[in-house]
Amino acid sequence: KKSYKITLLPGDGIGPEVVSVAKDVLLLTGSIHGIKLEFQEKLLGGAALDATGVPLPDDTLSVAKQSDAVLLGAIGGYKWDKNEKHLKPETGLLQLREGLRVFANLRPATVFPQLVDASTLKREIAEGVDLMVVRELTGGIYFGKPRGFGTNENGEETGFNTEIYAAHEIDRIARVAFNIARKRGGKLCSVDKANVLEASMFWRKRVVELAQEYPDVELSHMYVDNAAMQLVRYPKQFDTIVTNNIFGDILSDEASMITGSIGMLPSASLGDSGPGLFEPIHGSAPDIAGQDKANPFATVLSAAMLLKYGLGEVEAAERIESAVLETLNRGFRTADIYSTGTKLVGCKQLGEEILKSV
Amino acid sequence: KKSYKITLLPGDGIGPEVVSVAKDVLLLTGSIHGIKLEFQEKLLGGAALDATGVPLPDDTLSVAKQSDAVLLGAIGGYKWDKNEKHLKPETGLLQLREGLRVFANLRPATVFPQLVDASTLKREIAEGVDLMVVRELTGGIYFGKPRGFGTNENGEETGFNTEIYAAHEIDRIARVAFNIARKRGGKLCSVDKANVLEASMFWRKRVVELAQEYPDVELSHMYVDNAAMQLVRYPKQFDTIVTNNIFGDILSDEASMITGSIGMLPSASLGDSGPGLFEPIHGSAPDIAGQDKANPFATVLSAAMLLKYGLGEVEAAERIESAVLETLNRGFRTADIYSTGTKLVGCKQLGEEILKSV
Ligand SMILES: CC(C)[C@H](C(=O)O)[C@@H](O)C(=O)O
Ligand SMILES: CC(C)[C@H](C(=O)O)[C@@H](O)C(=O)O
Repeated sequence: KKSYKITLLPGDGIGPEVVSVAKDVLLLTGSIHGIKLEFQEKLLGGAALDATGVPLPDDTLSVAKQSDAVLLGAIGGYKWDKNEKHLKPETGLLQLREGLRVFANLRPATVFPQLVDASTLKREIAEGVDLMVVRELTGGIYFGKPRGFGTNENGEETGFNTEIYAAHEIDRIARVAFNIARKRGGKLCSVDKANVLEASMFWRKRVVELAQEYPDVELSHMYVDNAAMQLVRYPKQFDTIVTNNIFGDILSDEASMITGSIGMLPSASLGDSGPGLFEPIHGSAPDIAGQDKANPFATVLSAAMLLKYGLGEVEAAERIESAVLETLNRGFRTADIYSTGTKLVGCKQLGEEILKSV
Repeated sequence: KKSYKITLLPGDGIGPEVVSVAKDVLLLTGSIHGIKLEFQEKLLGGAALDATGVPLPDDTLSVAKQSDAVLLGAIGGYKWDKNEKHLKPETGLLQLREGLRVFANLRPATVFPQLVDASTLKREIAEGVDLMVVRELTGGIYFGKPRGFGTNENGEETGFNTEIYAAHEIDRIARVAFNIARKRGGKLCSVDKANVLEASMFWRKRVVELAQEYPDVELSHMYVDNAAMQLVRYPKQFDTIVTNNIFGDILSDEASMITGSIGMLPSASLGDSGPGLFEPIHGSAPDIAGQDKANPFATVLSAAMLLKYGLGEVEAAERIESAVLETLNRGFRTADIYSTGTKLVGCKQLGEEILKSV
């Protein structure tokens, strides 16, 4: 019997509620597929700050590193918003990504047929959108040095950061993206600002060179400003998008909002080896925390990504995906995706309905 | 009788066609309001590259600097896409912005009631959108140094840029934005990535300090990824947005696409003194160039911004704005904004109809 160690990082706000549902779904699915899952729960973000004074305790990182995959709920909240940078919940997340070396962030934006009307886009534009943003996650301006505060030649204060990519950083994220595009619709759009930025020119050059190894993938390039427009104009033109850390941050959020139901969207962050990090793309929603109102679908779908991309358990992953679709078809909805004619339930009950569909 | 010198930079693609219409509209409007306008036409972009070998000839910059305002059509085209950086049409535009020191880029995104259905957003979301993006235009990662290509400590190739803002650069763009917000709905949203970037933390700190001088303006802050989402979710929440060069590039394009009719949107780029630069936000559309199909409304509205923000001729500006609305009400449309029941016309004829409405 196969056995895996999973680190659970419930985090803040609604994090614990949605992770608890996903854990149950993983356990049941695992038992059906003969997969033994051992869970260890650790602190991250605001919860870790309150308990230990730092947003990513050493213990959390080392347990995560020794596990086979990490499932995260959400982090952050008003309470810690004014903290200094090294004491922000977000800093814990950035440290975790860096510590796990998960350089490839996979963010699907899928419009579920049952939820088309939740999109602010017209039905004919939103219907059938199914794209994947592959975002570089451990480089670029998020981590580039030098960074900080300084004084310029006129004695004036400044704030600065460095956008920098080395060859291997571009190559490895491009490879991930080409491979994903190959398994999806065979189209990869690389997004950059190569008409202005040297970092982007270099990015484009490496991507073009690598493309030779993937003759079956149709590669295109788009400037980031145009990509931000095209996502609104005609999102169905996209299959797989690959881009740097900051552009990926912006475009993947835009793409997810286009679906109209960010409570449905999972993500995976993968490295070359070692455990992947799986988390819903939504935030910690402190305003509804503890009220049994959270939508657990995104975390459950993150658990499916964990099985597929993290453990290679594709069948078990597909069982979870089907269970989610079936639960939607059976009409169950949390408040964020509710519409007349469907059945409004809380986080826990939705979890039970998903279990019935597993 | 007041007299002004206007530099015309028709540029590439459809640029000459739309600038020609705007020139006629300016002339007629000027004559009604007792304003004498003298035009000088100069080369920029691909047109300048072909004729002189550089994208911004010295002569163009010096004539532009000595004039009272600059009206630009559009630049770029497939023909020059593979040029090296210093020989790209875009480089000419960046040099022009830098040369004119126009640090404040004003980009309204307005949904015209007559054109709501052109938006890919649902009617109730798009209707009434009327926001202004104030983008910093001569600083940040577009101009920051060091930049270029290098080798890292492992002997690997790199590409890099510097995002940097000095105090006065933030202060002056923030002042422009506060003043605009004051004249509009009184709400200013400053967009940054202060949870990750020092350049953004510094930006936010200065904006917060300046806010004390504008107690009548309601200031809020938003992370750029969230702003990209909120523009899709509920764009009416925004009045005036202020942000850095690269975030402004992305968000202003996204905002303009939300209106569904980028052929309608003008822009103004202003400095502390010296001439402003006025241009439609659309590109040079090489595929329809020379076919009398271009939509001249955006350039005509840019001419209105030229009168208002560039010359302080508010009444003349408003006459042009009214003429545009009246022409729309009379049903005239170019192909990009055509819908059943309206009258399809070419660029020239639309120009004549606008003149009738002036
Ligand atoms: C919380 C923040 C640091 C993070 C990021 O910018 O990467 C978030 O926006 C995300 O996309 O996961
Ligand atoms: C053409 C390009 C250099 C330019 C920019 O990025 O500023 C354009 O996208 C714009 O927004 O005016």
